[in-house]
Amino acid sequence: MVTRRGFLGGASLLAGASALAACSTQDKESEAEASTSLKAQAVAFDGRHQAGIATPHQANLNLVAFTLRSGVDRAAIVRLMRVWTEDARALCAGETPLGSLEPEMASAPANLTITCGFGATLFDAAGLAHQRPQWLHPIPAFDRDQLRPEWGESDLVLQICSDDALTLSHATRHMIRAGVDYVATRWMQQGFLNANGVLGKKETPRNLFGQKDGTVNPRGEEEIQNAAWISEGPSWAVDGSCMVVRRIAMNLDEWEILDRTSREVSVGRTLDSGAPLTGGDEFSDADYEARDSYGLPVIDPASHMARSKAPEDDPGQVILRRVFNYDLPPDPTSEELSNAGLVFICFQKDPDKQFTPIQQRLDEQDRLNQWITHIGSAVFFIPPGTDPDNPNQDDFWGAGLLQA
Amino acid sequence: MVTRRGFLGGASLLAGASALAACSTQDKESEAEASTSLKAQAVAFDGRHQAGIATPHQANLNLVAFTLRSGVDRAAIVRLMRVWTEDARALCAGETPLGSLEPEMASAPANLTITCGFGATLFDAAGLAHQRPQWLHPIPAFDRDQLRPEWGESDLVLQICSDDALTLSHATRHMIRAGVDYVATRWMQQGFLNANGVLGKKETPRNLFGQKDGTVNPRGEEEIQNAAWISEGPSWAVDGSCMVVRRIAMNLDEWEILDRTSREVSVGRTLDSGAPLTGGDEFSDADYEARDSYGLPVIDPASHMARSKAPEDDPGQVILRRVFNYDLPPDPTSEELSNAGLVFICFQKDPDKQFTPIQQRLDEQDRLNQWITHIGSAVFFIPPGTDPDNPNQDDFWGAGLLQA
Repeated sequence: MVTRRGFLGGASLLAGASALAACSTQDKESEAEASTSLKAQAVAFDGRHQAGIATPHQANLNLVAFTLRSGVDRAAIVRLMRVWTEDARALCAGETPLGSLEPEMASAPANLTITCGFGATLFDAAGLAHQRPQWLHPIPAFDRDQLRPEWGESDLVLQICSDDALTLSHATRHMIRAGVDYVATRWMQQGFLNANGVLGKKETPRNLFGQKDGTVNPRGEEEIQNAAWISEGPSWAVDGSCMVVRRIAMNLDEWEILDRTSREVSVGRTLDSGAPLTGGDEFSDADYEARDSYGLPVIDPASHMARSKAPEDDPGQVILRRVFNYDLPPDPTSEELSNAGLVFICFQKDPDKQFTPIQQRLDEQDRLNQWITHIGSAVFFIPPGTDPDNPNQDDFWGAGLLQA
Repeated sequence: MVTRRGFLGGASLLAGASALAACSTQDKESEAEASTSLKAQAVAFDGRHQAGIATPHQANLNLVAFTLRSGVDRAAIVRLMRVWTEDARALCAGETPLGSLEPEMASAPANLTITCGFGATLFDAAGLAHQRPQWLHPIPAFDRDQLRPEWGESDLVLQICSDDALTLSHATRHMIRAGVDYVATRWMQQGFLNANGVLGKKETPRNLFGQKDGTVNPRGEEEIQNAAWISEGPSWAVDGSCMVVRRIAMNLDEWEILDRTSREVSVGRTLDSGAPLTGGDEFSDADYEARDSYGLPVIDPASHMARSKAPEDDPGQVILRRVFNYDLPPDPTSEELSNAGLVFICFQKDPDKQFTPIQQRLDEQDRLNQWITHIGSAVFFIPPGTDPDNPNQDDFWGAGLLQA
């Protein structure tokens, strides 16, 4: 195993650290010329909120969950968070983190974001159980769940996304290595969407059932504020969020037996444009009262769309989805031709009031249930954004909480 | 399991196949406007050679190996090849294959290529053992090999590549499903390079050791002809090739302990520009005679570069590399922080004269051996290109061989 000390030892052997700095400067100059290219595109790391939540989806995801090593206490967590925040800030700017010998691998951020979350058990390890948000607990078990322990709760999570898979791989590797004295990797969920440049700016990506996935996401500052950002409670939580991760297996073999009409009825939307079956375009309001010539509802009340919408007496049941597809080699012991599904990530203020009641309704009835199975679940507190230059903000992830 | 019949049954339920066609036409029109966008970029499927060999690398790879189902004989293989070739041709043009209900998933080829290869055992199943090329056998075992059966030889292979991961996923899924009556998936090796738009046209991609990987690849028609395309023997083989697949695990934990000088010495090239340690740029000739002030060779004779170069008395030891990185979740039972390496794919006329003698030298001595391990190996005959409009060419993969 490589320890951070060993890794820095390697660095100290380097004759001229300044050679790296010079190299990095050259990269900057050639990047400046190509400032509009994907390579040079960067998402601001610091800010009121962490990046990677309300910022645009990237093409590639590594969602990495960690277990704290035994004996890691609050002081050690603070050290880890200082290192991780500093390194993530550098990587997201296309700069080489301190001690890294791979400037060439960090030079193309391609919209890299690194977002950190704390599991319920981190509060225990930090001696902060009394501070744990009331909602930070496993999502209640649903009847249809087939959760596998290997995709379960963990102490810490990093959501790392980039439009470049090599950059993503290097950033993930760097963060795992930088934290090695404090954490071990528990699981890694890898996912993808369309490549940058394939979809138009307002086009909704599709999942592997061919459906536009995320049409009803909150849009604009106010809707996202209302759905995703914590606005009350202790100051260390305000402007943070809650991330729920569900791993959802999708049975393509069975799904694809359906004709297109049946596929559309199960969701309540057309496959091509994503418009509600009552007409209009993707973003048109659905008419749940509309009837066809037989007097039957045009949008099936058991459709995914009808079941997932917020009830009239609780319009706050809205989540900010940030969902990626997965498609892995088929399991050789299974008859299924594919091993595919969703790394379903959503953000909200309080899952007890948002994700859980929505999923409760879907678990009870949703035409899509015939083809999907929830096989993993985890919940994380997402600390607010950082900014070392702003005295009102944390300079590292969770500083307000961990130094409370 | 879904059979092709079941799948086509689904298709037949569709009221209006013409609706799909119309939809596809609309997609075409809007694509025409954005013809320079990544979405619409397509690589010609038909031609003298199969695409996906000498055509530019894409960002994403699914290399899928198949086992013929029992009872699949030459006539059945011909049926499979007719279906697969036709469907691959449509997918690579951004068109919807016959019977597919997912036109939206096929509309953005993003440089999709699908390349087919035949394993040694396919010749037995087809009753064509007497036609099998002499070189079509497992690569001889090397001392350092740690081959795992799960990455071994197989009857058939499809190399599917695209700059868009969703397109790749759909195309892979479609091909597996279209072949389900004939073949079962044996393994799938997934890999990646930089996203389209990140590297300049002549920039060489890097592997996860941070090295430019592929600098000495043959370039231009003549070099590629000499290295990769079969030019003698039966007409069904001419303009085909041989694909060798090696899965090479890379131990990043140990590699990253090295300082940059040691990393560069082990390969013989600088990390930043990829130039030989004797100077110049990435494509400069190395000076193997150059000595440093101590009288030692500047390029270590045990470096990867020195060991892999063709000997003076056998300049034909050149291969066309088409290599992708892999980076999977770390094995929870291992102390290693990463599970990474190369899906090493190379093309040549004859591996007994090209890949094998090169690898024999590397296996005996190569400074890189300390950090890499070959864990999989497979060899395939790549039939020549197809063109239904050209009476001198096959209209489906392997037609010349299978109809001999």
